[in-house]
Amino acid sequence: MIYDLVIIGGATSGLTAGIYAARKKLNAVILTKEVGGQSLQTENIENFPGFEKISGPELIDKMKEQVQKYGLSIKPGVEVKSISKTEDIFEITVNMSEKIMAKSVIIATGKKHKKLSIPGEKEFENKGVVYCSTCDAPLFGGKDVVVAGSGNSGLSSAFDLLKYANKIYIIGRADKIKGDEFLQEKIRENDKVIFITSAEVKEIRGSKFVEEVIYLDKKTGKEKNLKAQGVFVNIGWSPSSAFARGFLKTNEYEEIVIDQKTNETSVKGVFAAGDVTDVKYKQCVIAAGEGAKAALSAYDYLKNK
Amino acid sequence: MIYDLVIIGGATSGLTAGIYAARKKLNAVILTKEVGGQSLQTENIENFPGFEKISGPELIDKMKEQVQKYGLSIKPGVEVKSISKTEDIFEITVNMSEKIMAKSVIIATGKKHKKLSIPGEKEFENKGVVYCSTCDAPLFGGKDVVVAGSGNSGLSSAFDLLKYANKIYIIGRADKIKGDEFLQEKIRENDKVIFITSAEVKEIRGSKFVEEVIYLDKKTGKEKNLKAQGVFVNIGWSPSSAFARGFLKTNEYEEIVIDQKTNETSVKGVFAAGDVTDVKYKQCVIAAGEGAKAALSAYDYLKNK
Repeated sequence: MIYDLVIIGGATSGLTAGIYAARKKLNAVILTKEVGGQSLQTENIENFPGFEKISGPELIDKMKEQVQKYGLSIKPGVEVKSISKTEDIFEITVNMSEKIMAKSVIIATGKKHKKLSIPGEKEFENKGVVYCSTCDAPLFGGKDVVVAGSGNSGLSSAFDLLKYANKIYIIGRADKIKGDEFLQEKIRENDKVIFITSAEVKEIRGSKFVEEVIYLDKKTGKEKNLKAQGVFVNIGWSPSSAFARGFLKTNEYEEIVIDQKTNETSVKGVFAAGDVTDVKYKQCVIAAGEGAKAALSAYDYLKNK
Repeated sequence: MIYDLVIIGGATSGLTAGIYAARKKLNAVILTKEVGGQSLQTENIENFPGFEKISGPELIDKMKEQVQKYGLSIKPGVEVKSISKTEDIFEITVNMSEKIMAKSVIIATGKKHKKLSIPGEKEFENKGVVYCSTCDAPLFGGKDVVVAGSGNSGLSSAFDLLKYANKIYIIGRADKIKGDEFLQEKIRENDKVIFITSAEVKEIRGSKFVEEVIYLDKKTGKEKNLKAQGVFVNIGWSPSSAFARGFLKTNEYEEIVIDQKTNETSVKGVFAAGDVTDVKYKQCVIAAGEGAKAALSAYDYLKNK
């Protein structure tokens, strides 16, 4: 069988593409390692319009049911290894013996935040340890917070926290702050902010929530500790685009390059949506909108064939 | 007072921009004729991810509460007349004596579907009379449907209906079908479809729902009738951009031209989002994502000032 459309990825963007594809009665399927992705790790989403507060797993469940209502099948446990194109048909190699054939493809595999991989990080995830300041800065009103990472994304987190937090410690490994001068100055003006350079976050401690952060002062070789109720980890992320590299154009961050209007990639018939792409802002509702755009573009592509 | 950000328009896109602006603690306000816009006329939204089925007014209410939770104020009854810029400050003239000043602006005023303006159209709106095939084609399974309009948007509606409807009458005023040849052929192949040219829809009749459509055969001058349970009105739309024309670059359809990645318009500091822009697909969830993008771009713009 040749599908009209194969959607790779079963988080917000892929599921929204699924809703749109199903309503257009495309013969489509969603292939995904697990249904959900990053949202599953989010206890409270408060910036998805329509929900004052909802947990990530609950929002994902609602979208999943919505897709399945239309009879579109979601195959979890499927890992895509590679994609190739012969004439107008795409062949998708997965972690199973069968190959999957499709007339069009949407890639919506998202991204992963890089982790510190230190004791306490996993234990306190969403109990003080967070990865997105646009999402979570409002939760830290009056709190002391460590920002791990002094590049632009660390500085942006600090900037977002200025209006909420009590004290902000920005810890960077390099001997000077890496982010843009301009942003540094804006942050430096505020006496809430303490820059700590040549330092490495080593451990996060607490009882139920984060209480303390241990870091290594690389100049003295000594470990120090800070009282803090929050840790924003901003040391970059990896788009889940490995299987498509070489086949599709990606940028320096390994994001899939798309036409921002149509979600077309560099290969005709392949579309991409959400955090795996070079869309500027990585947010749940933006990924949803992008999924809808990609599905409508795929539909138009199929209509004109 | 000078606001950080004035959001013009209080439907999906403007309200989502409001949620993001408020969480960034911008000093912002939403000015709008009425809270809601097009969604208010929609009885059932089934393609907004997270809601299997929700009425337009209910979805809008939820978003409105979400905005207000953060203390961002929404001013209904405000009609924007014009915008001007002096140095870096925008002056917004409205239907009240005061002028409103802002450092940045988001325009999210949406669009209006053009109406047939014939007897029965208003009476049967959402009782058989609809304006969006992507949204509503699935409701017409097994039904006989009239598509008013034979341009590309009429043909696209007919194409969307092929998989659902029983009979599809495409009625166009011109003496031949206006939409793309290619799409015409695809539709013509299907014997569900009947093209009626040189004709004008005159009246929609029914009891509780649409039952009959009256049209004028312009060649004979005689009125004819068709039994039908649905009328898709596809005679174009008008973006609500009149107050911004001249000030901002608009395209041939009077849509505000944006950088699709950042939602910037042709004037620095002014952003636009959703159906009023040249975004390709006009859908509720896409407008929401675009609102979030515009707010984050406005925030970045203000951060770098």
